[in-house]
Amino acid sequence: MRPAVTQDRIAGVLAPVVTPFRPDLSPDPDRFVRHCRWLLRSGCSGLAVFGTNSEANSMSVEEKLELLDALVKGGVAAAALMPGTGHCALSDSVKMTREAVRLGCGGVLMLPPFYYKGVSDEGLYRNFAEVIERVGDERLRLYLYHIPPVSNVPITLELIERLLARYPGIVAGVKDSSGDWNNTRAMLERFKQRGFDVFAGSEVFLLENLRHGGKGCITATGNVNPGPIDRLFRNWRGADADQLQAGITATRNIVQKVPMIPALKSIVAHFGNDAQWRAVRPPLVELAVEPEAALIRELKATGFSMPGLG
Amino acid sequence: MRPAVTQDRIAGVLAPVVTPFRPDLSPDPDRFVRHCRWLLRSGCSGLAVFGTNSEANSMSVEEKLELLDALVKGGVAAAALMPGTGHCALSDSVKMTREAVRLGCGGVLMLPPFYYKGVSDEGLYRNFAEVIERVGDERLRLYLYHIPPVSNVPITLELIERLLARYPGIVAGVKDSSGDWNNTRAMLERFKQRGFDVFAGSEVFLLENLRHGGKGCITATGNVNPGPIDRLFRNWRGADADQLQAGITATRNIVQKVPMIPALKSIVAHFGNDAQWRAVRPPLVELAVEPEAALIRELKATGFSMPGLG
Repeated sequence: MRPAVTQDRIAGVLAPVVTPFRPDLSPDPDRFVRHCRWLLRSGCSGLAVFGTNSEANSMSVEEKLELLDALVKGGVAAAALMPGTGHCALSDSVKMTREAVRLGCGGVLMLPPFYYKGVSDEGLYRNFAEVIERVGDERLRLYLYHIPPVSNVPITLELIERLLARYPGIVAGVKDSSGDWNNTRAMLERFKQRGFDVFAGSEVFLLENLRHGGKGCITATGNVNPGPIDRLFRNWRGADADQLQAGITATRNIVQKVPMIPALKSIVAHFGNDAQWRAVRPPLVELAVEPEAALIRELKATGFSMPGLG
Repeated sequence: MRPAVTQDRIAGVLAPVVTPFRPDLSPDPDRFVRHCRWLLRSGCSGLAVFGTNSEANSMSVEEKLELLDALVKGGVAAAALMPGTGHCALSDSVKMTREAVRLGCGGVLMLPPFYYKGVSDEGLYRNFAEVIERVGDERLRLYLYHIPPVSNVPITLELIERLLARYPGIVAGVKDSSGDWNNTRAMLERFKQRGFDVFAGSEVFLLENLRHGGKGCITATGNVNPGPIDRLFRNWRGADADQLQAGITATRNIVQKVPMIPALKSIVAHFGNDAQWRAVRPPLVELAVEPEAALIRELKATGFSMPGLG
C-alpha cells in the first residue's frame, strides 16, 4: 500500500463515549446519538466510541456496528469518529476496522489482542499487520491503544517503531493510558516528528502533552467535563494554562474516587435527569445510592455543570 | 428454573482441542474433526473445544459456531463436548451457550468476562446469572473456568458458593487452572458433595484430584498424550498409579519447556506428518525450527508416540 497523506488528523479532546443500555441491557442507539451530539457541541473534537469506558468489550461486534451505523445515520460526522476496533479475535478486528474505514471514520483506536499475556512483540506486530493488510485501504488511520493497567498487554516503543517503519501514514498515533508520563514523553520524543500523534489517556497530562508536541487527550471524563478540558486545549499557550489544568485535574480527582465507568454514568444520569443511564453490563456494577450521592454533592460544590444536557 | 437431575456428567480426561488453521488463517473444520475423532479414540472422554489452548478467543463467535456445527455433523457425540462459551461480551456468551445447549453438548466451560480487572464478585455473579437466565434451559451444565494466570480474573470460592446455591444442577463444576493444588483441594472439600465436579487444569494434579474426589482433568497435553493420561484415570486406585502419574508428568514437563500452544501444534504436525498444523493466529507465534526439533527429539527419547494419528 502507498502511504497516504497525513493531514486532517483528529486533534483535541476526545471522549471514549459511555454506552447507554436499556432495561434489558441492550445498547440504546437513541440515547447514544443524543449523548454524542451533546459531546461534539460541548467541547469534544472527536469521539473515541467503543473504548474502555464505553464497555466496548462487553458488547458483540454486531451490537457495536449497529451503534456506529446509528451515529452516522444520526448525522454525526464520521471524520470525528475514532471507534475502538481491536479485539482478541483477528477476524473481529478486521471486520470492525473495515466497516469503520468504509463509513469514513477519522481513525480507529486499536487494542492489542488481550487474552494471552506475555506475548511477544513479533506476535503483536503480526496482529496489527494482518489487520492493516486485510483491510487494505490507505484511508485507514490506526491509533494504537496502550492501556497496560487493563489490557495487561503493553505496546512497546519497539513495536511502534516497527509498525511505523512498515506502515507510515497508516499507523497514525497512540493513546497512552499507562498513567506514566515518562512513557508518554518517550513516545513523543521518538515518534512525534514522524506523523505519529500522541494522545494522553487522561486530561491530567493534557498540558504537559501539548507542551511536548502531543495532539490532545482521549479521556473518560471528557464524557462529563468536555467544555473545561477543551478550554485548556484551545488556550494551552495562555497565561492561565496551569490554572485551567489545575481545575480539570481537580474535577478528575473527584470522579475517580469511585469506579470510573459507573461514576460517569451516574453523572450523566443525574445532570441529564435520565436514570436509565445508570445501567451497566456485567461484570460492572452501578454505583450504590450513597457513593453516587456523595459524588454528585462533591461535584456540585465545585460549581460543576453539564450545560445543555438532557 | 427447576434444578435438573445431575447424572451422566462428563468425567475423565478432556482435551482443550487445538484449532487447525489454513494458510490464510481461517479455521479448518476438516482437520479439526479428524483431530477430535483421534482424541476420542485415543483416551479422551470428552473434548473441551474452544479453550485457552484452542486459541478460542482468537476466533469470532461465528467461526467457533461453524466448527462446532462441523463436529456434530461429522459424527462426534455432542454429549462428549464441553465447548468454551465465556466471552467478554454478555451477548456473545449467551449466543454461544444457547447454541451449545441446543446441539446437546454435555456441558460448557465458561470463562469470566476478562477485559476489566479487579471486578467484584457481584459483577461476576451477575454475568453468569444473566447467561443462565437468558439461555433458560435446564439442560445447561455450566463449568466455571478458573484460570487466573491468563484471564487475570479469578473465580473465588465465595462466587462459586453463591452460584451453586442459586443454580444447583446447572452450575456443574469447575476447571481449576490456577496451578495451585491448595485451591483445587479447597474447591473439592467445600463443593464436591453438592453435585459440583472439579477438574484439574493439568494432568500433573490428576492423581491427587481423583484421590480427593475430583472427576478428572482438562489438560493441554491431552491433545498429544491422551492414552497414558487416560490410563491413570482408569487405574488410579491401582498399585502403579504413582508410577503412571510420574510418567505423564515427565511428558508434560518436556512439552511445557516451550510455549504450550505452538508446542502442541508442532507435535501434532510432526507425528501426524501434516505441517499445516503449525499455523497459529496472532498474537501467538509458531515455534522456530530449533526449539521444535529439540522438543521432538526429547519426546522421542522417552518413547513418546501418537498411535493412529495422521
